[in-house]
Amino acid sequence: MIKAGIIGGAGYTAGELIRILINHPEVEIIFVHSESNADNNIVDVHSGLLGETSLTFTNQLDKLDAIDVLFFCTAHGDTQRFLDSHSLPESLKIIDLSTDYRQKREGNPFVYGLPELNRNEICHAKYISNPGCFATAIQLAVLPLANHHSLHELHVHAITGSTGAGVKPSSTTHFSWRNDNISAYKIFNHQHLAEIRQSICQLQSAFEAPINFVPLRGDFARGIFATLYTECNLTIEEAYSLYSSYYTDAPFTIVTKHNPDLKQVVNTNKCVIYLEKHDTKLVIVSMIDNLLKGASGQAVENMNLIFGLKQTTGLQLKSIGF
Amino acid sequence: MIKAGIIGGAGYTAGELIRILINHPEVEIIFVHSESNADNNIVDVHSGLLGETSLTFTNQLDKLDAIDVLFFCTAHGDTQRFLDSHSLPESLKIIDLSTDYRQKREGNPFVYGLPELNRNEICHAKYISNPGCFATAIQLAVLPLANHHSLHELHVHAITGSTGAGVKPSSTTHFSWRNDNISAYKIFNHQHLAEIRQSICQLQSAFEAPINFVPLRGDFARGIFATLYTECNLTIEEAYSLYSSYYTDAPFTIVTKHNPDLKQVVNTNKCVIYLEKHDTKLVIVSMIDNLLKGASGQAVENMNLIFGLKQTTGLQLKSIGF
Amino acid sequence: MIKAGIIGGAGYTAGELIRILINHPEVEIIFVHSESNADNNIVDVHSGLLGETSLTFTNQLDKLDAIDVLFFCTAHGDTQRFLDSHSLPESLKIIDLSTDYRQKREGNPFVYGLPELNRNEICHAKYISNPGCFATAIQLAVLPLANHHSLHELHVHAITGSTGAGVKPSSTTHFSWRNDNISAYKIFNHQHLAEIRQSICQLQSAFEAPINFVPLRGDFARGIFATLYTECNLTIEEAYSLYSSYYTDAPFTIVTKHNPDLKQVVNTNKCVIYLEKHDTKLVIVSMIDNLLKGASGQAVENMNLIFGLKQTTGLQLKSIGF
Amino acid sequence: MIKAGIIGGAGYTAGELIRILINHPEVEIIFVHSESNADNNIVDVHSGLLGETSLTFTNQLDKLDAIDVLFFCTAHGDTQRFLDSHSLPESLKIIDLSTDYRQKREGNPFVYGLPELNRNEICHAKYISNPGCFATAIQLAVLPLANHHSLHELHVHAITGSTGAGVKPSSTTHFSWRNDNISAYKIFNHQHLAEIRQSICQLQSAFEAPINFVPLRGDFARGIFATLYTECNLTIEEAYSLYSSYYTDAPFTIVTKHNPDLKQVVNTNKCVIYLEKHDTKLVIVSMIDNLLKGASGQAVENMNLIFGLKQTTGLQLKSIGF
Repeated sequence: MIKAGIIGGAGYTAGELIRILINHPEVEIIFVHSESNADNNIVDVHSGLLGETSLTFTNQLDKLDAIDVLFFCTAHGDTQRFLDSHSLPESLKIIDLSTDYRQKREGNPFVYGLPELNRNEICHAKYISNPGCFATAIQLAVLPLANHHSLHELHVHAITGSTGAGVKPSSTTHFSWRNDNISAYKIFNHQHLAEIRQSICQLQSAFEAPINFVPLRGDFARGIFATLYTECNLTIEEAYSLYSSYYTDAPFTIVTKHNPDLKQVVNTNKCVIYLEKHDTKLVIVSMIDNLLKGASGQAVENMNLIFGLKQTTGLQLKSIGF
Repeated sequence: MIKAGIIGGAGYTAGELIRILINHPEVEIIFVHSESNADNNIVDVHSGLLGETSLTFTNQLDKLDAIDVLFFCTAHGDTQRFLDSHSLPESLKIIDLSTDYRQKREGNPFVYGLPELNRNEICHAKYISNPGCFATAIQLAVLPLANHHSLHELHVHAITGSTGAGVKPSSTTHFSWRNDNISAYKIFNHQHLAEIRQSICQLQSAFEAPINFVPLRGDFARGIFATLYTECNLTIEEAYSLYSSYYTDAPFTIVTKHNPDLKQVVNTNKCVIYLEKHDTKLVIVSMIDNLLKGASGQAVENMNLIFGLKQTTGLQLKSIGF
Repeated sequence: MIKAGIIGGAGYTAGELIRILINHPEVEIIFVHSESNADNNIVDVHSGLLGETSLTFTNQLDKLDAIDVLFFCTAHGDTQRFLDSHSLPESLKIIDLSTDYRQKREGNPFVYGLPELNRNEICHAKYISNPGCFATAIQLAVLPLANHHSLHELHVHAITGSTGAGVKPSSTTHFSWRNDNISAYKIFNHQHLAEIRQSICQLQSAFEAPINFVPLRGDFARGIFATLYTECNLTIEEAYSLYSSYYTDAPFTIVTKHNPDLKQVVNTNKCVIYLEKHDTKLVIVSMIDNLLKGASGQAVENMNLIFGLKQTTGLQLKSIGF
Repeated sequence: MIKAGIIGGAGYTAGELIRILINHPEVEIIFVHSESNADNNIVDVHSGLLGETSLTFTNQLDKLDAIDVLFFCTAHGDTQRFLDSHSLPESLKIIDLSTDYRQKREGNPFVYGLPELNRNEICHAKYISNPGCFATAIQLAVLPLANHHSLHELHVHAITGSTGAGVKPSSTTHFSWRNDNISAYKIFNHQHLAEIRQSICQLQSAFEAPINFVPLRGDFARGIFATLYTECNLTIEEAYSLYSSYYTDAPFTIVTKHNPDLKQVVNTNKCVIYLEKHDTKLVIVSMIDNLLKGASGQAVENMNLIFGLKQTTGLQLKSIGF
């Protein structure tokens, strides 16, 4: 059994991670750390777990020696602050869901944890930086083109559920405002653009074209629905062949020829990709559940790879359907 | 033109009041008072008014002499604090949307502003205490029975939209939580029970039976849908006759023989009442828009009555339909 | 491995059943029968299964000898018509999700499949009639009182998600109408009242009091939220003790002392029960997912019991959370 | 008083038109024609009108001589079929909400009824072809650029509410499917592209660049939220100046410097436009209510212009707010 600890246990990604791990056949949760909720029952915060666990949150770090893997479900900046101020056991694996280590830089020991891009490195990694949610949906939509060195200027619109904004109430997550509402934010300036470009350039080093990205806030809780297009001289058959081939060994990224809808992926770790060709442009629809393939599900996928488990272990989740 | 001022201008009921008054043919808004938003544009807070007004909020009270009516859209307790600490012009009419003066008591000069109950008193009133939203829906469902001295133990379930909880974000108005969710609160203990009982007893002084009231939080923004039942020895035809007769002169309370749905009243000042008889019990469905007939719409209705206007002036609102 | 067949495979309960069974460790789906979708891919209808199965629907019944259990996800009346016109292998187990065999009557060989009521009979049954969704939520709310012979007149309001109305589009499931809407239907006349009363009388044979039931249509897809109350001379502590004791061995029915919300049970097979005492009345909140504990989840629970598996096998589903 | 008739009275745009006209101070509705609902009460179909009208639908056309204006709220193709098979009074004005006469062609006597483009022609028109909903939102987003002869290749994503799909239930308007869901349709192929291009070319005749348009189905009932961008060598200040100048006399099209949200326009006849400049690209957000500025509201706006009324008469609607 893999023994796991979680830092930052009161937020949404931690809740989802616990909900996955509690049924994972090869994992035991040793502790869930939360300063703000120390000694509270986990089910009082993550109430969907009612009847499934009697664990309580802790504000102690005395069990770092008892675990094999430590998940950081921390606010951005907090993972780095934690690592800078604590010494961890040598053998401990780390999977960080924050943005802190996603960008390659001198001395950054973290592997970018997108299995469809870095599967081999992840299998041998000690430290994983888990991709962002928008970044996952957008990268999976274009990696086959980048790998084919044929990605051009990219046009992206993506609409996200409210859970992407976290557990803390705010004016843009206030139900009376958000219900039946749509709005755009961080137009052309979203912070995930950096990791998207980094991954594209890993495959297509000459890529310098613009990535025009309009993020939208949707009036639903879970999921990211992205539509993208780019100039492409492949036929639709060639494009499907390219994508299917690239994702042959990816158990969660599924290429479909049926125009899909977001709820196909909600509550699953899947990414569903759909293609259309119009004149010279290839249109790509890419959909994920932002809390699963976009966060905690992918974190468990990375854990499975690190520890030599089957990639899908504990992640064959029943889709919500409706 | 009636000159109006508003205290507590940044909340939801104030926003709705401004949206009504801005198109009211007999009203001019002189000032909208808000400590927290002083000098901000009103449209920056109540953004549905974009293009309709250039008014700004003020934290000054220098125009009390320039108005005919002052609306209090204040948090509960604040109207009383304001009146205790300010002296107002003798002739100024007051319409208070808070709970502060709803209960009759020695020295309370406010008339309870439910036109279907107190129309004559309202027409001659100086100070009006506007009813609560649940209280309006529930009273309108049972006043004909109380007037007929035949109301017995009352069973009430009512589900409310999120705007009833106001503008301030909280855990129970957080979109990720409230979307697709239902919950009960203040079971059998809601604060509106007092004003409901007071009005029933005004008509049926011997009424002492329980009012069993389960309030629910709904996953929509506007509206209250109440279902009630009570023992009743009237036939369904007699009951319809009793209700239709009682509401003959009420322009906004409509008795229907078609099973209704909440959106019929959303964005209107209507209350729609529907009846069924099952064995010995009369079932009553009662629906209002909590921000209109349940708050600001009824406040304007009261203003119309006080100033001798037609009761419906400025309140013939297009229903949302969908 | 248990070999399973499904009749009526294109509807919502069949979709949910397939989504469960596809990950059930002890089940193999042999065929999914649908007249209307013969030869279509199952994922084209139940698209949340994309990437999980290559099964197609069949309109043939040639594999009845190859299965151990046959699920009927049929419209009401169709199970009986099927059984009257086909002869089935002697050893075949049947689990019927329709209403056809829920009422006890001369010659009805089906056991009513509510494990919290009939666990032992189910373990030895050949034919199971799976309870209705409202019926499950309401019975689980009152069985401990009935077992204690102390149930009195019952007041029930319950709001259901749209999936309870099935896959066929209609005016009351039209999005433009139902979104943000609430309505009541079959007031005091819902067809599930018969099976509710039957189960209550199984435990408290003298029960003849009214069950006043107002069903509501909610503007969400999954879940039933029921609030009930009845006269009760137990203290709240005694009531909790009674309920906890009754459900000691029920793995999915959980009694909580925290006021719950519907999404705790969505996408799970749980029923969550919460109690409050007010004067002489006991208030009970009862929540289920109508497609799981209210239909296909409970069907699998019954299958597990019949075949001697652990009751929870394949049903430890991750809650949606949000 | 303008006397109005309506053909195709049972659909959503007809319902919205009636809800507007019933409160319009200068209009009397003479008849509402519907084959399918002949002799039914209008409130039984458009139930938000409860208490506001006792009109019934008619399947007779005997009052064509008694009206000044005839609105067609017909399915596409039906207006042309009607006009081809009926002779209408010479002086009768026609406002057609279908697509039948939007494209200029030899012998098409209809003026394209977008007041922000063709105000003068509309004022003197006899026959108006009312623009499509997506077409209105997109044109209003780019007309100032086209008028400035500086529109380039256009990138458009727009998400629409379900009322755009009409009153007839279907699989993509089934609540269980559409709730919390997002999907794309008619990618790069939407039928409104023709009228959009026609209007652009009316101002910028050399425009031949692609209009890349991805339409999305949203999980809300009312509204269109469009985000567009194009190469543009204006500064943001120049762009705002261009847009403000172009819309100076447009009472319903409002240019804002605050990032807006869809609900600002819901239940109003407004179009709200917002601009951002990023490198060489101008980003435009454009929002309307599809049933109002996108259909029936704009139809009334056109009627007001034809009959010499103030453009805003009967259209100063209270926004929903929430």
